[in-house]
Amino acid sequence: MRISLNETHDVALRSWVASANLAGSDFPIQNLPYGVFRCKGSGESFRAGVAIGDQILDLRAAFESGAFSGFGEVVHQAIVAATAGSNLNPLMELDAATWSALRLALSTLLRDGSVHQSQLESALVPQAEAEHALPAQIGDYTDFYTSIHHATAIGKLFRPDNPLLPNYKWVPIGYHGRSSSIAVSGQQFRRPVGQTKPPTSDTPVFGPCKRLDYEMEVGVFMGQGNAIGDAIDIGQAESHVFGLCLLNDWSARDVQAWEYQPLGPFLAKNFASTISPWIVTIEALAPYRATWTRDAADPQPMAYLDSAELRAGGAFDVQLEVLLQTKAMREAGTAPQRLSLGNFKDAYWTVSQLVAHHTVGGCNLRAGDLLGSGTLSGPTPESAGSLLELTAGGKQSISLANGEKRIFIEDGDTVIMRGWAERDGLPRIGFGDVAATVLPARSL
Amino acid sequence: MRISLNETHDVALRSWVASANLAGSDFPIQNLPYGVFRCKGSGESFRAGVAIGDQILDLRAAFESGAFSGFGEVVHQAIVAATAGSNLNPLMELDAATWSALRLALSTLLRDGSVHQSQLESALVPQAEAEHALPAQIGDYTDFYTSIHHATAIGKLFRPDNPLLPNYKWVPIGYHGRSSSIAVSGQQFRRPVGQTKPPTSDTPVFGPCKRLDYEMEVGVFMGQGNAIGDAIDIGQAESHVFGLCLLNDWSARDVQAWEYQPLGPFLAKNFASTISPWIVTIEALAPYRATWTRDAADPQPMAYLDSAELRAGGAFDVQLEVLLQTKAMREAGTAPQRLSLGNFKDAYWTVSQLVAHHTVGGCNLRAGDLLGSGTLSGPTPESAGSLLELTAGGKQSISLANGEKRIFIEDGDTVIMRGWAERDGLPRIGFGDVAATVLPARSL
Repeated sequence: MRISLNETHDVALRSWVASANLAGSDFPIQNLPYGVFRCKGSGESFRAGVAIGDQILDLRAAFESGAFSGFGEVVHQAIVAATAGSNLNPLMELDAATWSALRLALSTLLRDGSVHQSQLESALVPQAEAEHALPAQIGDYTDFYTSIHHATAIGKLFRPDNPLLPNYKWVPIGYHGRSSSIAVSGQQFRRPVGQTKPPTSDTPVFGPCKRLDYEMEVGVFMGQGNAIGDAIDIGQAESHVFGLCLLNDWSARDVQAWEYQPLGPFLAKNFASTISPWIVTIEALAPYRATWTRDAADPQPMAYLDSAELRAGGAFDVQLEVLLQTKAMREAGTAPQRLSLGNFKDAYWTVSQLVAHHTVGGCNLRAGDLLGSGTLSGPTPESAGSLLELTAGGKQSISLANGEKRIFIEDGDTVIMRGWAERDGLPRIGFGDVAATVLPARSL
Repeated sequence: MRISLNETHDVALRSWVASANLAGSDFPIQNLPYGVFRCKGSGESFRAGVAIGDQILDLRAAFESGAFSGFGEVVHQAIVAATAGSNLNPLMELDAATWSALRLALSTLLRDGSVHQSQLESALVPQAEAEHALPAQIGDYTDFYTSIHHATAIGKLFRPDNPLLPNYKWVPIGYHGRSSSIAVSGQQFRRPVGQTKPPTSDTPVFGPCKRLDYEMEVGVFMGQGNAIGDAIDIGQAESHVFGLCLLNDWSARDVQAWEYQPLGPFLAKNFASTISPWIVTIEALAPYRATWTRDAADPQPMAYLDSAELRAGGAFDVQLEVLLQTKAMREAGTAPQRLSLGNFKDAYWTVSQLVAHHTVGGCNLRAGDLLGSGTLSGPTPESAGSLLELTAGGKQSISLANGEKRIFIEDGDTVIMRGWAERDGLPRIGFGDVAATVLPARSL
């Protein structure tokens, strides 16, 4: 049931969109990620597009040009769904074979030598002239906790004697998040306010968050869902996934510490979350699979969380970079500075395990639902995906090249996340930047 | 900013729908709750209705009859919104003054002596011939933990030395829930399966839940929301609430015990939740306000959680009854047996405090969002809103009148919840039954 490599993955493919062939582009013809956009500042309705080089192929314009007419009924069904509304939910509700047929059509149309080039050139919009909206109506958002390195590091801060709880290696720990406050890259949001309890006080205080942090995550956009009461078998799980995005799950650490017992994070996480403009499909990521193993000393996964395919490469090798651009850096024209570099393959639980676990009790997933990986920290200090880890719980500040220091995020800071897969002999494919900027707290 | 009593609350009002005037009806003319229905087994689209006696006023049919034409622009706007689609979200997005105008129009139309009686008789559908759908598209579902009696009882089971955590009396504890698996009364769902860890074992096992429980809650349907980054002031909070429903937040206690640390309940709660078919508006509940106080020995609420109106009657006096009908009882024609009787006024935090807290950090609420009160247990043993409490953590079985015993819910059991407000000199207004039945687990 796993997507095979096919002609759309061919490293030799080149596009007539010249910028797609430049080394270092996130969007060569082997990628073809989906997003929702319109021309910046226009009153146009948002619509689906596919990133190619520094351009966006406007799917509605492409469809109306007639370019998709020769590809048969399945592709027709897919392009009708992709252009039906202002989000990708109708396309997500279709199945993996249909998505694959549309990808092949897009690859064919955008290749060097396509007879449709002149027809499609007018359906291109420069990315620099576009603004994005959420690619899907997100019915429910679930956040997991898949990095054992992150769970251990955080656990040490809260429970020095017992960092990793006994369930961690058995259960893909997850919790429900807030969908209303998820926005696409470019989000600007006010520093949250709330109750916190200073360690020196017996009673809480009220005011702006003082320990504002980001979390570097991968997001999983669900495709076709399951009926309530049914479970998605792990062998089928990936075929229910439309694709992956990047996700910054903003966190108010001081609010979290005071509120989270016994039912988990609430206001600490629901004021903002930011995702990448582009969803990279599972099919595009197929050449970048990584080995997934479980140490012999660890519990092996229960049957519903295990499969031969998982063992043969259930992880994805996606590099994950976090950068910071402070207000001073922005004003001085200084480029963002890297804070960390990690990799999705270091997660303890894979995408297919998350889907199988989420549904095993009968919970229904719907097309457009978003699953977060949880903070992806790797085994090394420089791969930690949050400031809480990089600053040892807020105890060691980070020195920036311009002389500034940071422990947590300050007003005016922009956090930028990037993710890409690349391997010898294969092109780099990426997600585009996730950028979000923190504004001062509202006046109290 | 609080709804005043007005002519729609007049105890002397009677309806030309005769069943609305019978003592003990949940739906006298002073109630007028909203739901979404269609004729049972029909292929009709679901549409909005108002319960009156044992009938439903089909709002679309009533609107098309022209009965609303004399009420002016605000009522016109409200009835257009109420009949625009297959859920109440468009009506919920309007403001409290508009809801109030529509209520007055409905009250006028349904009163004894209304000139519109003959016009509206054909817009009535017997409740016995109707089936319901969710009244709103629920964007996000949040569950709180407002009963200090419940929190203390549960805390004793998990932490005998430290039942109530230090944050409880300061923070209205809440967490995000799952919206996809919420359904209306009549829901039948499979017993969930999942990982649990028996106390006698070092490692978890996989199989059907053995400690399936209900939770008696009140649900809060949000009206007009707030922009992200803004907060809803507690003085304005109730005007953002469309109304209340009853909510059964089904819980797999054994799954919960193993999975819930450190991020809260997940699969233990997301397999099913059941709500009442009817939403009773805040305006209808206005005569049934109850005093809200805070013991002098307890921390007083922070400013954002306090107001003069809260102190003057921020709670609602709504009785809450849980009944059980086992398969054997159903087959023998035995009526459901009461398990508990509690009251919403015993909650530690009020509706307006939940709305103010939810938004204080900038989280945006949207019309149609659902907030749950958390299990509403009162101060006495017989007012406990879950089996976990009624059976002392599963240690003492409950004897039913037909000789059966229960510790937790068994396959084929139907749990029924009822809620109503009544006071000397005021009519009883209610929510209708919430019934849901547990089916055997899927085969593994």
